[in-house]
Amino acid sequence: MTESRNERLKKQFEFIQEVDKEKFIGRQTYLSDGMRKENDAEHAWHLALMTILLSEYSNEPIDVLKTVTMVLIHDIVEIDAGDTYAYDEKGLETQKEREAKAAERIFGLLPKDQKDKLKGLFEEFEEGKSAEARFAHTMDNVQPTMLNHATDGKAWTEHMVRLSQILGRNACTKDGSEALWNYSYENFILPNVRKGRIVDDKE
Amino acid sequence: MTESRNERLKKQFEFIQEVDKEKFIGRQTYLSDGMRKENDAEHAWHLALMTILLSEYSNEPIDVLKTVTMVLIHDIVEIDAGDTYAYDEKGLETQKEREAKAAERIFGLLPKDQKDKLKGLFEEFEEGKSAEARFAHTMDNVQPTMLNHATDGKAWTEHMVRLSQILGRNACTKDGSEALWNYSYENFILPNVRKGRIVDDKE
Repeated sequence: MTESRNERLKKQFEFIQEVDKEKFIGRQTYLSDGMRKENDAEHAWHLALMTILLSEYSNEPIDVLKTVTMVLIHDIVEIDAGDTYAYDEKGLETQKEREAKAAERIFGLLPKDQKDKLKGLFEEFEEGKSAEARFAHTMDNVQPTMLNHATDGKAWTEHMVRLSQILGRNACTKDGSEALWNYSYENFILPNVRKGRIVDDKE
Repeated sequence: MTESRNERLKKQFEFIQEVDKEKFIGRQTYLSDGMRKENDAEHAWHLALMTILLSEYSNEPIDVLKTVTMVLIHDIVEIDAGDTYAYDEKGLETQKEREAKAAERIFGLLPKDQKDKLKGLFEEFEEGKSAEARFAHTMDNVQPTMLNHATDGKAWTEHMVRLSQILGRNACTKDGSEALWNYSYENFILPNVRKGRIVDDKE
């Protein structure tokens, strides 16, 4: 093995080992058995598989591998920056800056070409302006909604989440896929409004 | 939304919710902090990201999206069949049959075209004869080796694993990638033989 290839592999495995820490980052969503909360790596795995199965519902044609890569890495910055709960207004203020710093350090472990590619995909996701980024956000919003429904609205009830918050958080879900947003609204959200698991503040 | 599209989506989400259970399936490998063991979903996420970053080292050209899909779903059968530890000889005897039954039930939740695709990929992985399957097995073998090394050989020590077992388990790792097998052997396995974390029964 040439020295330069060995150096490249060393950097790649430093990154691969570092991101193992994504498995330690907890989210607010309960798993479908309601026993414990999900972590970022489990969440990213779920989104990747959903992207492959549901890409047919994207409003626009998407590059599936690019979108899968995006969802696999979209939360890696939380290794340094922590998970910011969707309805934590204080945390959301400083989130961008904390995450940009984290992206520089963590993706910076990789060889330059791969750093540029993955950091670029992370930024594209954050900007949310490409077809792939829009669909990735749809996945990122629909998956916890499905799990919250599966657990009879457990996380929603605990946080006393209001329908207006959910609709705000999901303002762009339809931009990736009208079909998936409609399905999510009718099958995961509305039944929990009717059952009082989500506070109905829309009337 | 047409009735048939709604039916299709319902099947897809039944599968997507069912496979959430992969997050409950424990493996024998410790995470890099040595505090708890990995589960199947975390493992699959790690392999998918590794596949994207390391495909350049495949012995043969591979379809990266196909390989990523394969690693994302390769352990789904364990939802019914359980995880069989690589060195559990009794469990390995009945593993194939238990897993084939599980594949039929779990992938069978999907619409037929997607059931055929994913079940086909799972079987292709099991057969290990395509370039993608070979590389997927390389990922599946190198990742726990890396984590075992990261934890100072914790799982190896606990199971008193012998070098001959590791070499047997890794007999096909080089078939997906000579470069990655060599890297893994030199950087993750050999240092642990030298430190006595792996029982050296080769002399």
